[in-house]
Amino acid sequence: MRNLKTTRRLVASLVAGLGLTIAASAASADPFANYRQHFQPIPSVPPIPAGNSMTAEKVELGKMLFFEPRISASGVISCATCHNPALGYSDRIPRAVGHDGQVGERNTPTVLNSGLFTSQFWDGRVDTLEEQALGPVEADIEMNMPIDQALERLKEFPLYVQMFEAAFGGSDAINADNMAAALATFQRTLLTPNSPLDRWLAGDEGAMTTQQKRGMKAFVDRGCIACHRGPALTDSGFHRIQVPGSTDLGRYLVTGNEADRHAFKTPTLRNVALTYPYFNNGSVNDLGEAIRIMGQEMLNVRLPDAEVADMVAFMHALTGDIPEFPVPSLP
Amino acid sequence: MRNLKTTRRLVASLVAGLGLTIAASAASADPFANYRQHFQPIPSVPPIPAGNSMTAEKVELGKMLFFEPRISASGVISCATCHNPALGYSDRIPRAVGHDGQVGERNTPTVLNSGLFTSQFWDGRVDTLEEQALGPVEADIEMNMPIDQALERLKEFPLYVQMFEAAFGGSDAINADNMAAALATFQRTLLTPNSPLDRWLAGDEGAMTTQQKRGMKAFVDRGCIACHRGPALTDSGFHRIQVPGSTDLGRYLVTGNEADRHAFKTPTLRNVALTYPYFNNGSVNDLGEAIRIMGQEMLNVRLPDAEVADMVAFMHALTGDIPEFPVPSLP
Repeated sequence: MRNLKTTRRLVASLVAGLGLTIAASAASADPFANYRQHFQPIPSVPPIPAGNSMTAEKVELGKMLFFEPRISASGVISCATCHNPALGYSDRIPRAVGHDGQVGERNTPTVLNSGLFTSQFWDGRVDTLEEQALGPVEADIEMNMPIDQALERLKEFPLYVQMFEAAFGGSDAINADNMAAALATFQRTLLTPNSPLDRWLAGDEGAMTTQQKRGMKAFVDRGCIACHRGPALTDSGFHRIQVPGSTDLGRYLVTGNEADRHAFKTPTLRNVALTYPYFNNGSVNDLGEAIRIMGQEMLNVRLPDAEVADMVAFMHALTGDIPEFPVPSLP
Repeated sequence: MRNLKTTRRLVASLVAGLGLTIAASAASADPFANYRQHFQPIPSVPPIPAGNSMTAEKVELGKMLFFEPRISASGVISCATCHNPALGYSDRIPRAVGHDGQVGERNTPTVLNSGLFTSQFWDGRVDTLEEQALGPVEADIEMNMPIDQALERLKEFPLYVQMFEAAFGGSDAINADNMAAALATFQRTLLTPNSPLDRWLAGDEGAMTTQQKRGMKAFVDRGCIACHRGPALTDSGFHRIQVPGSTDLGRYLVTGNEADRHAFKTPTLRNVALTYPYFNNGSVNDLGEAIRIMGQEMLNVRLPDAEVADMVAFMHALTGDIPEFPVPSLP
């Protein structure tokens, strides 16, 4: 495996810092109480960019576009094919399958809570959902349809003409920017509140089991939280890692910086029990095995089995309420 | 076009019969009232076969299997890919696209109200939903997974083991018959009541517009109802027809009978406004054009434009309430 010194140094210093916190809380009656400060709940509303206010019209339109297969060359692939609501808004296969059955290089990331990320895709080649939204439509191994063609297709339907106008105003409202804005707005609604962790953070002591709390403690003490932090449990940053079977250069392909060779965005741990298989190439199905590999790769430690089991339990405490709505009827 | 004499003779005799009915009702205040007798509403419960009672456990399991892409070779194609809830439980492309982007010979029939059909598939190669359910899973151009392999896949998930046992009892409940029974049971729930026609049949005079009623009258008077009859507006029978671009031998491939060359099952007209494009090869997008072709092919008449417009309006009166439920979460 490659040189991970920088990351490990960062993690080590954070772990040391956290050690102090733990020492200070040792006297408390509840050995886990002071760990609350390390976590943030899923917010009720995600950050909304100034240029794309959230409106019901955009959400409804974006939802339809998300399920719209006719903006793919084959006519049967939509965003919801790989970001499948039945499968935690991912696909539960190692690497994405797209146009004509082509298999991509990377595992499909969930779009749940993606409104909380500050970088998108495994390599962070764009920062916002607006910049992200149209990439998979055009990608030749995904939906394989040039955006101009997708827009022409949408213009054939009076309902889309009407809904784009209602959402964005203007007479020529079906354009790439608006399509991206609607998709991004819908995706921002895909938050998953009320996980056991969130309920515990809100004061419900029984929301997590003792094993889950032990797992949470280990997660903090080991320093996992250095990168898996914030409400979505990701720093949206990039860290070098090489998992079994991967030769993917990751963020290096975006920046050309040697330091980014094999670096990938920290994936969210929200709903991680639903979003297997794991890692950039989806090479690992088992959550415990994924945690063991993370210990080895990022922390250079062999995590004891009991600790892994506790962390697996904690990961299950990160499953929130999955958005529930009927599939929209398309024109 | 081929010899359609038998069908046309049948239609002509039925039209003659209907003429008497119409004459008898001419004196009534409402010129459409007597047409009620020609139609049947969508029932609240479909016929349930003796061997497969409808239970909530089977419905829930069948719904999950319907959305389950991991019983396809690619891992991304489910029943719901082509029978897409967003698109009237069909796909709105001419011919089905399946495994590795392969394009089939035929247009995807909707599964809405398929519990009312007494034959299945365009060629009626099987009669029941139970016999139909597993065909597309195995078909190499559709989901392309042998059933034994699909069953093995399902057995990997404790939740499926538990749900099959709850639905069917026994310790080895995950088998092909039960899988088909669950899918068939779910499909039987996909009824679409409360269309304008149904509401008019129930006595709501204003449920259909006058144009829709005129279209209904023409539909009966022309004899379309000879084949498009019963609650699902199909006789589940086979009739010879050759639509633009089709060389498909249809039911002949099943029976080997010359009389079945280019014969296809009468498609349901329920929700026909949602289930374009039309015909066995999906060659026609426009409902009016489809009606014109039916007039020419089946009745040997050139329907006047005004009558076509009335019938199109009536076809829109056949759109019922589409089942609405959240996509199930899969294990």
